[in-house]
Amino acid sequence: MTNEWVVATYQVPDDGDLRKKAESIAVGLTVGTWTDLPAARRAELEPYKGVVVDIRRGQVAADRSRVAHLAIGYPVRNLRADIPSLLTTVFGKLSMDGRIRLIDLKLPDAFVRAFPGPRLGIAGVRQRLGVWGRPLLMSIFKSCIGLSLAELHEQFVAQVEGGVDLVKDDEIFFVDDRAPVFERIALFREALDAHEAKTGRRVLYAVNLTGPVDELVDRAREAVRQGATALLLNVLPYGYDILQRLREDPDIAVPILAHPALAGALYASPHHGIAAPIVLGTLMRLAGADLVLFPSPYGTVPLDAAKAFALRDRLVEPFAGLAPAFPVPSAGIHPGMVPRLLADFGLDHVVNAGGGIHGHPDGPRGGGEAFVAAIEAAVAGVPLEEQAKTCPALDKALAKWGVVA
Amino acid sequence: MTNEWVVATYQVPDDGDLRKKAESIAVGLTVGTWTDLPAARRAELEPYKGVVVDIRRGQVAADRSRVAHLAIGYPVRNLRADIPSLLTTVFGKLSMDGRIRLIDLKLPDAFVRAFPGPRLGIAGVRQRLGVWGRPLLMSIFKSCIGLSLAELHEQFVAQVEGGVDLVKDDEIFFVDDRAPVFERIALFREALDAHEAKTGRRVLYAVNLTGPVDELVDRAREAVRQGATALLLNVLPYGYDILQRLREDPDIAVPILAHPALAGALYASPHHGIAAPIVLGTLMRLAGADLVLFPSPYGTVPLDAAKAFALRDRLVEPFAGLAPAFPVPSAGIHPGMVPRLLADFGLDHVVNAGGGIHGHPDGPRGGGEAFVAAIEAAVAGVPLEEQAKTCPALDKALAKWGVVA
Ligand SMILES: [Mg+2]
Ligand SMILES: [Mg+2]
Repeated sequence: MTNEWVVATYQVPDDGDLRKKAESIAVGLTVGTWTDLPAARRAELEPYKGVVVDIRRGQVAADRSRVAHLAIGYPVRNLRADIPSLLTTVFGKLSMDGRIRLIDLKLPDAFVRAFPGPRLGIAGVRQRLGVWGRPLLMSIFKSCIGLSLAELHEQFVAQVEGGVDLVKDDEIFFVDDRAPVFERIALFREALDAHEAKTGRRVLYAVNLTGPVDELVDRAREAVRQGATALLLNVLPYGYDILQRLREDPDIAVPILAHPALAGALYASPHHGIAAPIVLGTLMRLAGADLVLFPSPYGTVPLDAAKAFALRDRLVEPFAGLAPAFPVPSAGIHPGMVPRLLADFGLDHVVNAGGGIHGHPDGPRGGGEAFVAAIEAAVAGVPLEEQAKTCPALDKALAKWGVVA
Repeated sequence: MTNEWVVATYQVPDDGDLRKKAESIAVGLTVGTWTDLPAARRAELEPYKGVVVDIRRGQVAADRSRVAHLAIGYPVRNLRADIPSLLTTVFGKLSMDGRIRLIDLKLPDAFVRAFPGPRLGIAGVRQRLGVWGRPLLMSIFKSCIGLSLAELHEQFVAQVEGGVDLVKDDEIFFVDDRAPVFERIALFREALDAHEAKTGRRVLYAVNLTGPVDELVDRAREAVRQGATALLLNVLPYGYDILQRLREDPDIAVPILAHPALAGALYASPHHGIAAPIVLGTLMRLAGADLVLFPSPYGTVPLDAAKAFALRDRLVEPFAGLAPAFPVPSAGIHPGMVPRLLADFGLDHVVNAGGGIHGHPDGPRGGGEAFVAAIEAAVAGVPLEEQAKTCPALDKALAKWGVVA
């Protein structure tokens, strides 16, 4: 990986001596000093020195103010193939350097290939489910905290019978005394196996993985041994690296769903932090998420469409041979949104519904049924209103939420 | 810990129905729904439900715009005593809720006591060093990347002989093929032991802890077994939880220095993210950092004084019995700053110098000597100019950098 560069692009104020600023980043985050080094030391350190790749004035920030872009190349030889090494180098100290935002990250193929990427990816998850040619359907518990195992089981079965492909825990479900994780896994696995025996349909349950970070690999292994079929991880609160280590363990061969908790604290500002497509796209895929949840462009507090689509692209576009990951745009999803979702995210995404399932007039079974019908129609190019004529559940959903063009 | 609340305060736009917004946070991040629940379910879930503690309109943000503050109480029973649980709950999904910033976090004593806090803290680190009654002095390598073990050793010895109490690796030092971590530990430990035998002065070397996050506890244990006297950790890139796990391991009984890499991505925006005193104060201390580096209010890109002092307070003020941690305000520090540092941070802080040591006209030995003299003078209330008359190294430093009133 010598003579190759990780190129990070920063958005900074469009003023002052940008060449000098860029040089100081390139040197400061690699060899420390340069101009005052003797020639012999320079020759020795040259291969480790960062370089200024590009300086562009007169760019425009998300809030329409005028900014500049600085692209800095970091020698790949300075980095390990892990996210702590990458983030500490390109946006560690620099994140505290006033008004500066990391907006792009270009990685050489050989460096990308040193990361695991998704274990199963889109194709592997489809194979687990035996589902091709349509988006997947996922639902979330209406709530988890404080409920008993029996209450959660009831919610779970209703969701499964509604026809979803995946059910996930609440990401805030840390204290589960009333429904301990291994009891959930065992009981829900029974329900899933029974459902499969009856219908031939396989469904996955993503259990929230919690505990001390240095025990998560062992806990995940044990969860899989006890029948877990998927894992949910709060990647940012735990740190990206544990995602990579879960991915790399051969015994944890189930899909990993990356929850975006805390991501807004990094991506939401126009002038600081890190762009969402890097936080939830590039880095999640490198480290090995199979499915990545992110705010849809449709909710009450949307990620704007351009960013959501850039994020989607980072998950699915060719990336040095890494498997693609499923985009899971979340919030504001009801059955009438499905044609729009299909237009925006294509066949390879996950329709993720909370309120759109549980808020259905007939409850989660009706909600699931409505979504299944909507997905079938949208993929076939049949108008939802047409499909609703033969599916009362969809009809009720459209009456409640309408159809989004 | 029942009937106790973690109270998080958010800065949000001062518009719309704030009562409704606050209620929706209190419910949404705990039991999910409330108004549509039957009475029996409400009675069952009441102990898990968040509450609105306070709503204040007409507040002022860092950029002087008008904002509101919402204080929400989360039942402690929903939380585990770890940072992923705490952050996911109070600022997971919520971080993506538009313009919102986490600005304060009040924790009940019993919850705080369930965290380890610093193992050694200020008193324990002082005891290791045998140094009381003055700030400590730390220096950093001029650079690490690409240098051979012999070159780093030379830098190391010069810093130690200059009179510093601690020397730390560069936080970006991940690839160390030319000076592998266990070789550095062994060789530098020899130098430290020799220095102590000669002078009676103990010095600590904080080695950068890197590698897969689930192996860091083992690597740290091995480092200590091989003679490491302190550890440097990029807490945010690795995730806070591994700091807590390093702290809790009884075999890793050395000070842990928390580097603030990546922190600016969380704290720097006026309207998003998390305030610096939480990111680098409260959470670092809970998880167990003994020393916390943060941008000083004096550098070219300062943390403003109010925030730096609030951060300092979170590290040192009484906190349910947790040991206090050393504030390490960094950047812009030269010998002429020491009286100002003492006035701002008191006896219990660490004077952390990079350029102020290596940029001394006589090199790092002179730099160290100048700082030692400056600290001695400042603590005794002797003007630096006076002290400089009997210390040529300090005289040269003051000639180069001046004295800051
Ligand atoms: Mg939820
Ligand atoms: Mg440095």
